[in-house]
Amino acid sequence: MDLLLKCDANYVPLTPVTFLKRANVVYSNRTSIIYEDTRFTWSQTYERCCRLADSLRSLNVGKNDVVSVLAPNIPAVYEMHFAVPMAGAVLNAINIRLDAKNIATILSHSGAKVFFVDYKYVELASEALSLLNGAVPSIIACIDDIDTPTGVRFGQLEYEQLVQRGNPGYTGELVQDEWDPIALNYTSGTTSAPKGVVYSHRGAYLSTLSLILGWEMGNAPVYLWSLPMFHCNGWTFPWGVAARGGTNVCLRSTTAKDVYHNIAEHSVTHMCCAPIVFNILLEAKPHERREITSRLRYSQETKWNKLPQQDQAKLKARQGISVLTLADADVKDLDTMASVPRDGKTMGEIVLRGSGIMKGYFKDPEATSKACRNGWFATGDIAVVHPDGYLEIKDRSKDVIISGGENISSVELESVLYRHPRVLEAAVVAMPHPKWGESPCAFISVKKNYNGDTNDVKESEIIAYCRKNLPRFMVPKRVEFMVELPKTSTGKIQKFQLRALAQNFVVNENLPSKKITGPIQLSASGQVNTQVQG
Amino acid sequence: MDLLLKCDANYVPLTPVTFLKRANVVYSNRTSIIYEDTRFTWSQTYERCCRLADSLRSLNVGKNDVVSVLAPNIPAVYEMHFAVPMAGAVLNAINIRLDAKNIATILSHSGAKVFFVDYKYVELASEALSLLNGAVPSIIACIDDIDTPTGVRFGQLEYEQLVQRGNPGYTGELVQDEWDPIALNYTSGTTSAPKGVVYSHRGAYLSTLSLILGWEMGNAPVYLWSLPMFHCNGWTFPWGVAARGGTNVCLRSTTAKDVYHNIAEHSVTHMCCAPIVFNILLEAKPHERREITSRLRYSQETKWNKLPQQDQAKLKARQGISVLTLADADVKDLDTMASVPRDGKTMGEIVLRGSGIMKGYFKDPEATSKACRNGWFATGDIAVVHPDGYLEIKDRSKDVIISGGENISSVELESVLYRHPRVLEAAVVAMPHPKWGESPCAFISVKKNYNGDTNDVKESEIIAYCRKNLPRFMVPKRVEFMVELPKTSTGKIQKFQLRALAQNFVVNENLPSKKITGPIQLSASGQVNTQVQG
Repeated sequence: MDLLLKCDANYVPLTPVTFLKRANVVYSNRTSIIYEDTRFTWSQTYERCCRLADSLRSLNVGKNDVVSVLAPNIPAVYEMHFAVPMAGAVLNAINIRLDAKNIATILSHSGAKVFFVDYKYVELASEALSLLNGAVPSIIACIDDIDTPTGVRFGQLEYEQLVQRGNPGYTGELVQDEWDPIALNYTSGTTSAPKGVVYSHRGAYLSTLSLILGWEMGNAPVYLWSLPMFHCNGWTFPWGVAARGGTNVCLRSTTAKDVYHNIAEHSVTHMCCAPIVFNILLEAKPHERREITSRLRYSQETKWNKLPQQDQAKLKARQGISVLTLADADVKDLDTMASVPRDGKTMGEIVLRGSGIMKGYFKDPEATSKACRNGWFATGDIAVVHPDGYLEIKDRSKDVIISGGENISSVELESVLYRHPRVLEAAVVAMPHPKWGESPCAFISVKKNYNGDTNDVKESEIIAYCRKNLPRFMVPKRVEFMVELPKTSTGKIQKFQLRALAQNFVVNENLPSKKITGPIQLSASGQVNTQVQG
Repeated sequence: MDLLLKCDANYVPLTPVTFLKRANVVYSNRTSIIYEDTRFTWSQTYERCCRLADSLRSLNVGKNDVVSVLAPNIPAVYEMHFAVPMAGAVLNAINIRLDAKNIATILSHSGAKVFFVDYKYVELASEALSLLNGAVPSIIACIDDIDTPTGVRFGQLEYEQLVQRGNPGYTGELVQDEWDPIALNYTSGTTSAPKGVVYSHRGAYLSTLSLILGWEMGNAPVYLWSLPMFHCNGWTFPWGVAARGGTNVCLRSTTAKDVYHNIAEHSVTHMCCAPIVFNILLEAKPHERREITSRLRYSQETKWNKLPQQDQAKLKARQGISVLTLADADVKDLDTMASVPRDGKTMGEIVLRGSGIMKGYFKDPEATSKACRNGWFATGDIAVVHPDGYLEIKDRSKDVIISGGENISSVELESVLYRHPRVLEAAVVAMPHPKWGESPCAFISVKKNYNGDTNDVKESEIIAYCRKNLPRFMVPKRVEFMVELPKTSTGKIQKFQLRALAQNFVVNENLPSKKITGPIQLSASGQVNTQVQG
């Protein structure tokens, strides 16, 4: 049987570009994109992508060249998810919330050959380019608004003109090897310099199938782009919506008014909701709201709907089961590579194997081999495995608080805090403790009461609440109130800032009569060694 | 980016065995198999497969060895879809409706090392082995009924004993190359000797995802095994049900009583229905029927449900859109390799490309290269493409009737006949015609009227009906009535038998005053050459 060789008929490299080519044939007249008053069908989207790919080729953009884009969820970014790989190039979608310095770092590190900039981000892009000392991308193009052109220009070229001047008969470069790169995404860099995550055609293809299978996303969804496409390629949804012949509802910003309007107007069936999006919708003013008549799905937890509400909330807080195209997921002690028992208690690091995992970090062999070792990708997330096989993330490995030899999961503590009726945001970090080494310190922001007041919630109330709901050793020794917690551009709470604050805090509790008698030393393993008497 | 190499963490060969391993973890306590009073959970099914794979290894069964099985849809065949590849071997599920001679041909051609035989097929297997002249599989084992053991034995071993004596800690051979073979299925051989179709792990994996995506089969389906697992590996459903953590309802035979009973008893949600299965259900006697309360899906044509019934029927008769993991499907003129226009009229041959296509025909390089040429797999099916992109199969390429230079699709003609209220079965083949070369001849069987009568339907009535519903040149020149049309073991009508009959028929119509004056000759291209005068 080994005599049967691969040929073009039975071995075709996996690439999500296939989904667009198929959509062009089988969903040709269905609406692919809605943006303001602009509409495209799948055959139009396909033609536009062919044209853009041809234009890129004629600009000498080819295999493994990086095409960067700085733009919100507009049709152009959607099209570039297909047109850029069709030209053989690699898409680098940059977070619009980054500052000029970060953007310059990414343009420089990626060696971007092309830089597309949405007309609203010209100033930011300009500032970023000025930091590059002349080593700028060779092709710079503005993306004017496709629905309401403004005339704003930047660089030599304009996106829509590039689309129009391309040859619609060009069908794209054939992917020769499914391991070829398709996208380059930079990490948000909460704890270190941004790293460039390289994604393969194969990985993108398989992750897309995983996503639509896991979500049970059927045919012809109407998908609202609340999730940024520059965020891990919108979790592969740009490719997934094409695979399902769905409609992409694009919007520039996720204001309550725009989101409600688009959901109601276009009968949206699917959207991704980070907690911040839920908050925006919940806090919308009456005149911003619209009645939603379509059946809207935002996650998939069908089988839990019959459980009591509190059990549902607990189950929904877990991180679910391994996706279908992941070969294996496990929670291991990284020193021994032994799996933790399925007891819901023993913590280990989540490790993954599968063809949806990144190729590696661009120009960073050290970080790549650190992440991929012993045949597993180490996620840096600390978790337990429940008896039913579900993983529950307890913490980022660096966010574990080690207090008196006990590992305290800051995530677990935060999830208790979030269940308090007045807590809006919560983050728990370690603060130094003379007896226990570390102890938990909570930072919270508070919801207004009926008077619009937030000052009525006191530290003692929160601590009393925690005592009722947590083992004693996990109760925060201190609670700090903030108007808003510090966040990254992607909305992640910046724990390193809170940690810096907490380093200076003094513990508010009666200490046993022990005194530190020697100097505090860090052992090689990071443990605090000192001498006490008492 | 080409410096980022594949490693065990980010490049894992695709294989459907992954689905079982995942089911063991995430669906461990869900019911995997129901058969009579026997029940297994996914963790039990996984353990049984590990054990069986280990037993096969201890019998020296390994890479690329063929394991044949002759059995209906019992749990053992389901388990072998995982256990055999876990041992590194190749599954060959043999059609139980074949005769001993055909089975012997398959055992001999495949070089089967192991032969499992269900206890009810011992006599048939014994006859087949006697035709092999001693070159029999080295390991022969009986599969006794797991629910009601009979004590029947055949060969040296028994399936359940093999399962029990295997090591449950064995987790299977790792697939090193996803191009490795997983299954060997023989064609039914209606027109030529059976060919051995070899399927790869990659192909099986991708086709499984295609299937559950195309069917929109969600989580935890209850799947009734009406489709034989020996038929193209049950269209990959054995692997698909594992991927979705569903329940396999196994049954030995698709009698009306058993099918109704299992649907009602286990709230079946999905089943495959060949027309013959529908007929069985429709013709069930009252005492065989059961009320069906579950929502049962047998195909996916949601978007057509709002059309008038006649339009629905027409649309459902089409062969649908390309599945998601197929890279490309087209209808081409095989001489020029040009695509036919999307006009719903121009016929060509359906060609496919994609990683779900077979590796090739076992030990038959000539047939393999004939099927896979110019980068496409030629299906032998003749079709048109509609303006909406849908293909409609018009015929098998050899079943086209060429009458007076016009191509007549026998399938099209048959579909008109099937819409006649009294037609039960219909097949149309070519019969010689002195003027037009060929003309269509219809063979039909008739439904009983309220008197239980079938003789009241006359040839003239059928021809008049065709005249009303077909272009004149397509109207059959002769209609033959049969009690039942001749069929293969898989229920396909044996047109070659009908063609042999039709060769002797005389056309019942007034011929123009032309006479054949020379001998009838076949040209090299198969055209009839003769001389006429008149």
